[in-house]
Amino acid sequence: MPTVHDATWTLLRRLGVRKVFGNPGSTEMPFLKDFPSNMEYVLGLHESAVVGMADAYAQATGEPTLVNLHTAAGLGNAMGAIINAAAANSPLVITAGQQVRAMLSLEPFLANVDATTLPKPAVKAAFEPARAQDVPAVLARAFHLACLAPRGPVFVSLPMDDFEQEAEAAEPVIRRVAGRAMPEPETVRLLAKRLAEARSPVLVVGAGVDAAPGGFEAAAELATRLQLPVWLAPNASRVGFPTDHPNFRGVLPSGIAWVSDALTGHDFVLVAGAPVFQYYPYAPGSYLPEGCDLVAIVDDPDAAARAPIGDAIVADPALALRALVEAAPGAARPMPTPRTPLEIPAAVDSLTAEQVYDILGQVFPDDGVIVTESMNGGAAMWDRVKFRRPGSFYFCAAGGLGFSLPGAVGVQLARPDRHVLAVTGDGSAQYGVQALYTAASLRLPLTILLLANGEYGILKGFGEYLAMGGVPGLDLDYLDYEKLAAGYGIPAVRTGRPDELAVAFQKAFAASDGPRLIIADVAPGVRLGG
Amino acid sequence: MPTVHDATWTLLRRLGVRKVFGNPGSTEMPFLKDFPSNMEYVLGLHESAVVGMADAYAQATGEPTLVNLHTAAGLGNAMGAIINAAAANSPLVITAGQQVRAMLSLEPFLANVDATTLPKPAVKAAFEPARAQDVPAVLARAFHLACLAPRGPVFVSLPMDDFEQEAEAAEPVIRRVAGRAMPEPETVRLLAKRLAEARSPVLVVGAGVDAAPGGFEAAAELATRLQLPVWLAPNASRVGFPTDHPNFRGVLPSGIAWVSDALTGHDFVLVAGAPVFQYYPYAPGSYLPEGCDLVAIVDDPDAAARAPIGDAIVADPALALRALVEAAPGAARPMPTPRTPLEIPAAVDSLTAEQVYDILGQVFPDDGVIVTESMNGGAAMWDRVKFRRPGSFYFCAAGGLGFSLPGAVGVQLARPDRHVLAVTGDGSAQYGVQALYTAASLRLPLTILLLANGEYGILKGFGEYLAMGGVPGLDLDYLDYEKLAAGYGIPAVRTGRPDELAVAFQKAFAASDGPRLIIADVAPGVRLGG
Repeated sequence: MPTVHDATWTLLRRLGVRKVFGNPGSTEMPFLKDFPSNMEYVLGLHESAVVGMADAYAQATGEPTLVNLHTAAGLGNAMGAIINAAAANSPLVITAGQQVRAMLSLEPFLANVDATTLPKPAVKAAFEPARAQDVPAVLARAFHLACLAPRGPVFVSLPMDDFEQEAEAAEPVIRRVAGRAMPEPETVRLLAKRLAEARSPVLVVGAGVDAAPGGFEAAAELATRLQLPVWLAPNASRVGFPTDHPNFRGVLPSGIAWVSDALTGHDFVLVAGAPVFQYYPYAPGSYLPEGCDLVAIVDDPDAAARAPIGDAIVADPALALRALVEAAPGAARPMPTPRTPLEIPAAVDSLTAEQVYDILGQVFPDDGVIVTESMNGGAAMWDRVKFRRPGSFYFCAAGGLGFSLPGAVGVQLARPDRHVLAVTGDGSAQYGVQALYTAASLRLPLTILLLANGEYGILKGFGEYLAMGGVPGLDLDYLDYEKLAAGYGIPAVRTGRPDELAVAFQKAFAASDGPRLIIADVAPGVRLGG
Repeated sequence: MPTVHDATWTLLRRLGVRKVFGNPGSTEMPFLKDFPSNMEYVLGLHESAVVGMADAYAQATGEPTLVNLHTAAGLGNAMGAIINAAAANSPLVITAGQQVRAMLSLEPFLANVDATTLPKPAVKAAFEPARAQDVPAVLARAFHLACLAPRGPVFVSLPMDDFEQEAEAAEPVIRRVAGRAMPEPETVRLLAKRLAEARSPVLVVGAGVDAAPGGFEAAAELATRLQLPVWLAPNASRVGFPTDHPNFRGVLPSGIAWVSDALTGHDFVLVAGAPVFQYYPYAPGSYLPEGCDLVAIVDDPDAAARAPIGDAIVADPALALRALVEAAPGAARPMPTPRTPLEIPAAVDSLTAEQVYDILGQVFPDDGVIVTESMNGGAAMWDRVKFRRPGSFYFCAAGGLGFSLPGAVGVQLARPDRHVLAVTGDGSAQYGVQALYTAASLRLPLTILLLANGEYGILKGFGEYLAMGGVPGLDLDYLDYEKLAAGYGIPAVRTGRPDELAVAFQKAFAASDGPRLIIADVAPGVRLGG
């Protein structure tokens, strides 16, 4: 009979696993031993980097992605990144080794005590197989569950002595589980009618539209067909609409009253692939303009249930948008007024974050992808940098810093054909700095833009918004990223000059021999929401 | 009326808070605004470093220590370090900002969804005050609870809009809560009798003896008085006994059968301040030699309950040992046979980890403290480096790497009068590398010893023990710690030569102008348990 180890790896192969993202410890060795030569083990030197890479890889491929962490300490280190992955609906199967079953009731060293509680509430479910023989079936369940809407991380604890046990079945059962849900036809028909009859409808596109295959294209077709102006949802972690489309309006601001202000004049809001809404900061007021209705299409029942306003349809947003394209009559409305480009003073001898994006926009490749956690110069980024294809933009979905460096590694691994740019700051880079190791070790040709202003600038901006002072810890002392990058084997250029920055971007995008770091010294000060 | 902000900081001052360890975000700003000028905010650039510093500071001072983290993402990032702190019984009060109450049911951006579940099971308790006015009382409860046996982290979620609310009381109530428990006199008398009557008793000292004030001295007195040989408990995270004492035997090995072997010949084992036992790896066999009895004194009811063998007394181990010193008649037993020093071949042109400790032992200051997470050359460390005072040794209590660099910062902040040495490896340093920033920024005069072997050596040793191969991810690619240290502003020397290493140690221990890094290139290969 095969062992549980044999049965587990046979199952994983048949489920299509090609990469395992991990950081190993002793409790994982019985699982990892005799690692298949046709799979790749992607090593991260910190669990936060491991999960950040896997999260972005899962988002960029759309495939369930296997993570292996080291018992309680490793799973604990990863929790911040798992919270981001959960908010991004990333289909991760996160495993961690567990101590030998015979010692668990003694709480031995390296035991994952109460292992199925530790990853909560960030995982959809957490399992520890009741018997060694159940390991393959529990892993299969986790793979299916992670991929069913709303997608998200599922945890499995793997006692280390399970793998040497005899498996129960000669062959693991391989199942396919399909879960993308269409709205019922009558619901589509009524929604199409509502859109057609609205005086001034508007489309708000969330991350879920980019995550659902075909959503990006369906959103663009619907907007063109019905002449809908299109916003991205507040704090959207992905871009589900081509931002060079003439109907694109930008990203909705994220305060309650601000959303309402931005949507003034509309009588109907169709939201796709976003909860209503991920507000922040607290700017009390009306949720919507007077007389304006809202319908949201989301695949997460709880997001549908908890929204403070609007009707909701629980369905796959891409399938729903595609159905609407087919059901909606073309509109006789005029084309929305084009956006007025943001005015950004030309840079001369120094740089602001806005000017960095002005320069970046001129050289950003058509197939470019941005993986960012920076709030610095956000409005300029949306204005100047165009995202033309699905899977072009990833932001830390729960606001957890330490995402962009690992995330860029994950996206580059998923999409070796595309130009990937990580954007971070001198503050935020510290939360995921260990990902530089993996980027260098795998010689991934990604580019890293680090906006250096010597402060937690967004917090200073927030303090101004709230009119509060005397907050400690907002200024950064000595941090030399050229040396840090060199420590990981990554070449860096540092500049505060626009001409040098343009050259650095061009060289980095043309390079294919490993990661490049561009440190842009920018003026301090970050404007909230911009 | 004062605000909740006023009442909270009045309370914290009166509770004796002098330092706040934190990493700020927008949700924490209403708490941190107008930060008191007579307190110090210790900034860490990653939450794992923040909690690691606070954990060691709390252990080294014995005082409840306040931590402030950024909502779910920050608390999540800290979970690995909190698991270490929990295992170390570190009295931390860990707070995290929470979104505005008026938006919580919408799950806005940066909400800490289900905030009191997230830190479980690593905290003793987790609270979110039901009303803004309860913030001071809930914090006071957390401070008291964290300090009561078994000590450990307590979590409080702080909604950001609470601080501007009007406080309920003009003055916070200040209470003192005492909880160190003596065993009842009859229990002490019987235990003293049992010790006196035993043919060959032995004392096993755990971390709890060092943590309880007076425990270190009481253990030494009891050992001298009764001529007890003394072992440290397996995987002890602190040293509760002077290791230069003639009765010191070393650290018990940590497999079940190995403990039994090491204690062969004894008929009675007294364990103080340790669970029975933190076994690892799984080496099945008898828990104790034939005919040997065991009594454990621990202040953790669950540790007392779950031990597989032996009677237990739930009490403060220091008070119990002191009572035993007073109750026990002096023994007529011969002095235990002295240990045979470990044979370590003298280093010539290269270094092993064992040789590093041989050299270190010759220059280690009497007041020296080691904060370590390295398993490399452990037996040599115990043999050559002597710990003569309480609070001289700290190890990652749950085995979570990323402890020693932050921990050394925390100990040096707590004990500016002592020579603190962090010991880490080129693998393990990556889990807590951000602590280098705080060490440099505060110009703490600590020394860092980094044993560089280009691998996860202990895992290779473990693989040999388990006779399993083909585990990926055990070798480290390019990592230049001289450059990494320079990136944080820390001078480094790197050497593989014994003479240079000795000079480097002497210079570093004599320096007082900031941290120094010593990179010792050592031979690959780490022996499990040695």
